[in-house]
Amino acid sequence: MVRGAVRLDRLDPRATPGCRDKREAAARLARLLERLEALQYRLYAGQRRSLLLVLQGMDTAGKDGVIRKVMTAFNPQGCRVTSFKRPTAEEAAHDFLWRIHRVAPAAGEVAVFNRSHYEDVVAARVHALQPRADLKRRYDAINDFERHLEQSGTKLVKCFLHISRAEQHQRLLERLEQPHKHWKFNEGDLAERTRWNDYRRAYEIAFERCSTAHAPWYVIPSDRKWYRDLAVAEIVCGALEAMDLKLPEVSLDVRTLRAELDGRAAVGT
Amino acid sequence: MVRGAVRLDRLDPRATPGCRDKREAAARLARLLERLEALQYRLYAGQRRSLLLVLQGMDTAGKDGVIRKVMTAFNPQGCRVTSFKRPTAEEAAHDFLWRIHRVAPAAGEVAVFNRSHYEDVVAARVHALQPRADLKRRYDAINDFERHLEQSGTKLVKCFLHISRAEQHQRLLERLEQPHKHWKFNEGDLAERTRWNDYRRAYEIAFERCSTAHAPWYVIPSDRKWYRDLAVAEIVCGALEAMDLKLPEVSLDVRTLRAELDGRAAVGT
Repeated sequence: MVRGAVRLDRLDPRATPGCRDKREAAARLARLLERLEALQYRLYAGQRRSLLLVLQGMDTAGKDGVIRKVMTAFNPQGCRVTSFKRPTAEEAAHDFLWRIHRVAPAAGEVAVFNRSHYEDVVAARVHALQPRADLKRRYDAINDFERHLEQSGTKLVKCFLHISRAEQHQRLLERLEQPHKHWKFNEGDLAERTRWNDYRRAYEIAFERCSTAHAPWYVIPSDRKWYRDLAVAEIVCGALEAMDLKLPEVSLDVRTLRAELDGRAAVGT
Repeated sequence: MVRGAVRLDRLDPRATPGCRDKREAAARLARLLERLEALQYRLYAGQRRSLLLVLQGMDTAGKDGVIRKVMTAFNPQGCRVTSFKRPTAEEAAHDFLWRIHRVAPAAGEVAVFNRSHYEDVVAARVHALQPRADLKRRYDAINDFERHLEQSGTKLVKCFLHISRAEQHQRLLERLEQPHKHWKFNEGDLAERTRWNDYRRAYEIAFERCSTAHAPWYVIPSDRKWYRDLAVAEIVCGALEAMDLKLPEVSLDVRTLRAELDGRAAVGT
């Protein structure tokens, strides 16, 4: 969790704090996935609270990978993933939180955002899509919006998948060299890559402004994929544990219902 | 797959055609889940076709179970489950296919419907919510709608989870007797259960009218959960295999891009 001023270049993307190696990570992740499934079951049954996981990161940081490796723990009936791309004409005709709000999780649901409203302060800052004064208001708007969600029963977890520039180079190279990965290669990524430092700075500002007690930002060292998956699973699991979810207590008149069930069965069969 | 007149009481819900026992089913299911993941990857990468799986069945037939046991094979990023409940005021103010159409799968997606537009001919018939003449038009409207989806690139698979009345009795009893399952008990299910034969007949009519070459209905013997999961996985897998999905061929100018990648890396680092 990060609070206050953040310097991303002082956080090592290859670090693996609290975990020795890949093998230990695999064993721990397997247990966490089971636990996530059990916790989501209670969240879903309770129909009162919800969870929103925001994933951000530079291109190739592993947002898709985390979803494939960790979010598959969840029953898809109660989990919805939304990938935010360039706004459609309809989306662009609304305020920047409009498209976000309409896919916020309903009670009982887990929502995962692959990119999010943070693009509207990060990419928007890098490409100067907004006057600086408007950008500043956006940070406040985000904080107000997230506080509103939190007060309405939604737990927010925001993870930044932190990779090094060298690791991104390696991953883009792999996509180029392996023909079966060509469909994933986006020529626009190369242009974005030249803005690396601008993006880093824009993220640092977003964390400083928008990592709050009710909606914290976590910076996940992500050069090692096995650590990245473990860390996200642990954070999400911790957030769900902290919600103290219980199966709803329903008071049924079991005797009457049972008589009704048997009686009617006797008539109809 | 069913075509023409169907008599559900002649189809044994305890049957396990083509599979000896639970152990064999588990081994085969595990392989199918891996295959489903691989096929969905290609569907997602291709961004041209899509898959729509419709699940129907009496209460407790196992729609939720199939989603939990089989649909977890899919990457949640490309799979969306929609549970259709009693229509909201807004939904009821539109034609019955409106709420269905808006959650039809986009290119590259898998959509799973837990209940569907078939409630609008089945429950609607049982409870006489519509004049018979309107109901008749609905079957045609469904066929036209499903043909349109098929022609637009969506593969439709419709599965009816077929349980016996005795098995439903058993499952409702379990929900009553186990306090941690009380939250799943819906007192309305007991009333619906008295309409068992009406529902059966309504389904038979729906299959006869709406099991088409382009959008077939499958009746899945579902008293044994292990067989039900295996059968649905096999049918969905078969449907995806038949789509002959290939990774898109993208022609990249690898040399130029690679130079660009390395050149820019050299400048920025």
